[in-house]
Amino acid sequence: MTEAAFIGGDWGTTRLRLFLCDGHGAVLARAEGPGAAEADARSGAIFSGLTADWDKSLPAILCGMVGSTIGWREAAYLSCPVAADAIAQGALRFTHDGRSVAIVPGLSCRNDVGLFDVMRGEETQLLGALRLRPDLAQGRHLFCLPGTHTKWAVVEDGQVLRFHTALSGELFALLSAHSVLARGAGAVNGAHHTFAEGLRVAGGEAQPGLLHLLFSTRSRQLAGEIEQEDAASYLSGLVIGTDVAASLRLLAPHGPVTLIGAPDLAALYAQALAEHTIGSDNIAGDDAALSGIAFVHQALLGAA
Amino acid sequence: MTEAAFIGGDWGTTRLRLFLCDGHGAVLARAEGPGAAEADARSGAIFSGLTADWDKSLPAILCGMVGSTIGWREAAYLSCPVAADAIAQGALRFTHDGRSVAIVPGLSCRNDVGLFDVMRGEETQLLGALRLRPDLAQGRHLFCLPGTHTKWAVVEDGQVLRFHTALSGELFALLSAHSVLARGAGAVNGAHHTFAEGLRVAGGEAQPGLLHLLFSTRSRQLAGEIEQEDAASYLSGLVIGTDVAASLRLLAPHGPVTLIGAPDLAALYAQALAEHTIGSDNIAGDDAALSGIAFVHQALLGAA
Repeated sequence: MTEAAFIGGDWGTTRLRLFLCDGHGAVLARAEGPGAAEADARSGAIFSGLTADWDKSLPAILCGMVGSTIGWREAAYLSCPVAADAIAQGALRFTHDGRSVAIVPGLSCRNDVGLFDVMRGEETQLLGALRLRPDLAQGRHLFCLPGTHTKWAVVEDGQVLRFHTALSGELFALLSAHSVLARGAGAVNGAHHTFAEGLRVAGGEAQPGLLHLLFSTRSRQLAGEIEQEDAASYLSGLVIGTDVAASLRLLAPHGPVTLIGAPDLAALYAQALAEHTIGSDNIAGDDAALSGIAFVHQALLGAA
Repeated sequence: MTEAAFIGGDWGTTRLRLFLCDGHGAVLARAEGPGAAEADARSGAIFSGLTADWDKSLPAILCGMVGSTIGWREAAYLSCPVAADAIAQGALRFTHDGRSVAIVPGLSCRNDVGLFDVMRGEETQLLGALRLRPDLAQGRHLFCLPGTHTKWAVVEDGQVLRFHTALSGELFALLSAHSVLARGAGAVNGAHHTFAEGLRVAGGEAQPGLLHLLFSTRSRQLAGEIEQEDAASYLSGLVIGTDVAASLRLLAPHGPVTLIGAPDLAALYAQALAEHTIGSDNIAGDDAALSGIAFVHQALLGAA
């Protein structure tokens, strides 16, 4: 094992994933543990237990909610605009159980709506995307990281200028689980015409906003225009369509959008962007996170 | 007891309220029972049990989800535009256990967004408002019935022209109960500056839509701009402010808006309307429902 080997960790709210990586970032071993919310005061012990068999000389680089107030140790937000190197150098570093540990800081900004906004974990995926796709580190590019809290980030010459958050994933999950809108519906099917119909309604001229569109998921079932089975696809189209239409209005990108996330979800966003004749490409979220961690590792090695 | 006496019933999804009324609509006695969702196939038996002591010659007029597919008997939606008398005459009439029963039909329309929309129960409150406030039965007026599913209705010369639904109450309740946004917050306080701040953000020039504003309930707590205790007030301001801003944009009323609903909730909407320099007055929702039932009763008596 070379001295450039490292331990990477993506420690989110609900899950910890650890990776033992060689100097090229290839994964040699994996471990999983509880999320930051559950780990709480036991974070240090959990980390030590899971990494006990891995060489003590290897540093660990962790990202995500591990650095929040509910996480292991708080790594203060860095204010945008912020360059990739500054994010790496802003890591919170400490020694735990004989091992060097770095926690990547989250980012904050005043977003396009003028409101304070934050991300934690997505900044590492952005770093990874710039490393995996050097062409994106030059010029101005719009990134979309779909998920529970979807982030839209404007990156120029490798600097994160600003971003904003849409509650898309969480809102869809809450409405699916608890409202009458999509009760008894099947899974979301992006290939079904009701998903496209939801996109069309949300992105149309009227654009009354999601609050005034959601009930149509129910009323159009009563009208026989949508089958109960397909209601979740329509609802997903409304939510993602609203997210994309509003974000494009706010951010007016000139080129394609880079999606960073799980391929299935990214495909739904790609379809929504295509409705507005905006192209997109996708970097898998896990690849981006690991690559971002490798970037931070190398930056800290270089600075050491 | 005069022959014009009647039994009125507001049978919603979660609750049945029955009123024994004299010929002037004054309430002589009350009874309560399970909502339509719970009553289901037992609806007839429940109704008979609760009204057993009341004169069999008195007719009953019921409104709300009792007429839906989950209710006692389905009273088909009437299509807008529809006049007050036509709603009354459209009641589903049958004899149950020796008593004459009428169920007020719901309304459907193609709303201002071009989507199929429905109401059930609110049409009776609209009838009641027109009866309680004869001035509203002439000319064009905008009504807002805030609640789980807020309805905005345009009424002209006593005809319901069209309406639309905003999922405001349900969305606020879901986000309060299940999301991280307002965890640990106190009750909504319309007099607190954070409620006004939510209204201001939602109604501002940018108007990015609720999906892109919701997360600020959380991020602004992290920034120290909002206290955890006040988060529900801010969230309520965002939701109601978005509802009102979008509805005014869609419907562009020329005069004051008549709110029909619980006074506390109506006061929050009045405050949101005032942000847009739109005046409002309020008719208590219970009064409106009972008055509407009395209107239907009299119309059916007159037609008999």
